[in-house]
Amino acid sequence: MRDFVYHAPTEVVFGKQSEEKVASLVKKYGGHKVLVHYGGKSAKKSGLLDKICGLLRDGGVDFVCLGGVVPNPRLSLVHEGIDLCRQEGVDFILAVGGGSVIDSAKAIACGVPYDGEVWDFYTGKASPACYLPVACVLTIPAAGSEMSESSVITNEDGDVKLGYSNQLSRPKFAIMNPVRTFTLPPYQTAAGVTDMIMHTMERYFSHDDDMDLTDSLAEALMRDLMDNVFKVLADPEDYRARAQIMWGCSLAHNDLTGCGLTGDWATHEIEHELSGMFDVTHGAGLAAIWPSWARYVYKENVSRFVRFAVNVLGVPQDFTDPEGTALKGIEAMERFYHAIGMPVNIHELIGKEVSEDEIREMARKCTRGHKITQGSFKVLGSEDIEAIYRMAR
Amino acid sequence: MRDFVYHAPTEVVFGKQSEEKVASLVKKYGGHKVLVHYGGKSAKKSGLLDKICGLLRDGGVDFVCLGGVVPNPRLSLVHEGIDLCRQEGVDFILAVGGGSVIDSAKAIACGVPYDGEVWDFYTGKASPACYLPVACVLTIPAAGSEMSESSVITNEDGDVKLGYSNQLSRPKFAIMNPVRTFTLPPYQTAAGVTDMIMHTMERYFSHDDDMDLTDSLAEALMRDLMDNVFKVLADPEDYRARAQIMWGCSLAHNDLTGCGLTGDWATHEIEHELSGMFDVTHGAGLAAIWPSWARYVYKENVSRFVRFAVNVLGVPQDFTDPEGTALKGIEAMERFYHAIGMPVNIHELIGKEVSEDEIREMARKCTRGHKITQGSFKVLGSEDIEAIYRMAR
Repeated sequence: MRDFVYHAPTEVVFGKQSEEKVASLVKKYGGHKVLVHYGGKSAKKSGLLDKICGLLRDGGVDFVCLGGVVPNPRLSLVHEGIDLCRQEGVDFILAVGGGSVIDSAKAIACGVPYDGEVWDFYTGKASPACYLPVACVLTIPAAGSEMSESSVITNEDGDVKLGYSNQLSRPKFAIMNPVRTFTLPPYQTAAGVTDMIMHTMERYFSHDDDMDLTDSLAEALMRDLMDNVFKVLADPEDYRARAQIMWGCSLAHNDLTGCGLTGDWATHEIEHELSGMFDVTHGAGLAAIWPSWARYVYKENVSRFVRFAVNVLGVPQDFTDPEGTALKGIEAMERFYHAIGMPVNIHELIGKEVSEDEIREMARKCTRGHKITQGSFKVLGSEDIEAIYRMAR
Repeated sequence: MRDFVYHAPTEVVFGKQSEEKVASLVKKYGGHKVLVHYGGKSAKKSGLLDKICGLLRDGGVDFVCLGGVVPNPRLSLVHEGIDLCRQEGVDFILAVGGGSVIDSAKAIACGVPYDGEVWDFYTGKASPACYLPVACVLTIPAAGSEMSESSVITNEDGDVKLGYSNQLSRPKFAIMNPVRTFTLPPYQTAAGVTDMIMHTMERYFSHDDDMDLTDSLAEALMRDLMDNVFKVLADPEDYRARAQIMWGCSLAHNDLTGCGLTGDWATHEIEHELSGMFDVTHGAGLAAIWPSWARYVYKENVSRFVRFAVNVLGVPQDFTDPEGTALKGIEAMERFYHAIGMPVNIHELIGKEVSEDEIREMARKCTRGHKITQGSFKVLGSEDIEAIYRMAR
């Protein structure tokens, strides 16, 4: 079993009344002047932004607001946020939104106390000595950024999307009110759940077969998410199901399901190039790639795929034919994706055939110009990645 | 579903190499002068104490030592620790041991910065404004104190055992090396696992039937602990099984398995009086009480007991007879307790019949002189508690 560190210090305040505590939580974690960071019109339209600002005001917490975060959050807005924080003497960043807003908040939080260019942290040229404290009011369960240490920012200058992880960036608190997710459209709901399940699968498909406890927790989490996504697609205002998806999202990416295992993460990397080239929803892109990744790699550890088929998808085990059971698990996963409106190949995702040139270009980018490999379940070079794109075509 | 707060900020550093990081972790969390707090001879004999002291010395961290913590840790030693910390300018408490040592460390940590009597926190007369930081090197997985906010101290003056919970007392880090648990005797191992499973069951037996995610995680954890205890009883040096028990211990009591539920905790309270009167091992006492508690209360929510029987113990479900399935689950739990050397009634626990006077005395104490009730799955007054002691006789 791998040695591991598990550290998920974020205080999760969960439920219908959770937002009421925002001012006292900001004060508890040392905030005096807050940047309220948000995305577009939905935070305003829903009344959430007004509510949070009102609660801060009533609680005697001073604040300024900065909206405009878009999916794949931009470096230019991060710069704007850093400038605003310095001008206004902000000492606490509160993200109100989903993963993109939280990621943007994390970037601002390390940029404010740093004299140089914040992008240096993302390119690995520098490392931050400190962060302003970050916290969030979550509205879209998907990315898991509310408890994670990672942030992904896009530099429009060169269209480069890079991730950066730092323990200091973990949100101090995360307010989660499942009612706020009632209005999420079906496609975004399904893509979000796909992303959460994939966060778990990336850790689960490991050669470390000796940590049953982590595996069993991961299986329970995946089964629960699969069960509840059908409930919310049938009834978007099913509080019980929305709540389990929201909490499941955090558990899928706070490292609980990775303790003692080596993660793979190849599907995420392969998908990143796909969404970079075709501007698709990340979760949907993962569904389009995973079945092909799975068929390409399953022979590396057939019993792992058998376990997934049986314990997660309820496939009857053929004890005489492990490979057959493994493949039936991949087919069952495809049926699940289709049942929630997700694609299982690139054609279904983007509505057209991807070309050979595009495949080669994505594989080249995914391996930083053929310089690195991806994955650990099976280590994938650019030729492997090209083959997976072709299978997923 | 109940609103909840989940906050488990302890940094868990887990594995064979984990102890090596002790000095850097102390410094990371602001320690300059450490009190190394420990129990009796086993920490010395195993070489662990010397190793930790050597690592602190090599890491340039100054320290003083205080041993002598006993099971049911005493207030007098807490006072001694507080005096020593003040004399020596200690600013960080490192517990090396099991739950009793960590509980004692937590009491010292809130006593040092407080002008009054530390026992006031346990009796509810005062509330601490701050704690010295606490951390631990865990050697006995059972109590879950390494990630919990609670501490139980015995005041020898009057023989009163009281618990106190405070978010500030959660250890900053917990070093867990499963190899250190290889030498735990079978009885202590089995009693520890019984305690962990009971920490989960106290949360699981709830009328909140609408949080499947928490329930499923709890079931996975209980099944895993039950599986692994047989492995370590067969081979005390089975690293894989020891590791899962050690990590499972923390997950059983860091509130993960309580999210969205109302806990019961009656079995713990009923057992406290038993171990108070007969000085038995807490885990063994829980096993002696639980089957009788279960038979006394199961009709309050039969489906919960059916779920436990089927999902945790693998009892075949008789769909025509829910009560029969529920009762078979309780019987299966008794077989499990017997199989790992635990008692299922008080006679097996203490080797003699408990008297009517003793039963009435324990029930009286358990309800603070008939003033309070215990439990929430079924609210129990002193007559109910007497009845359970009689059933468990």
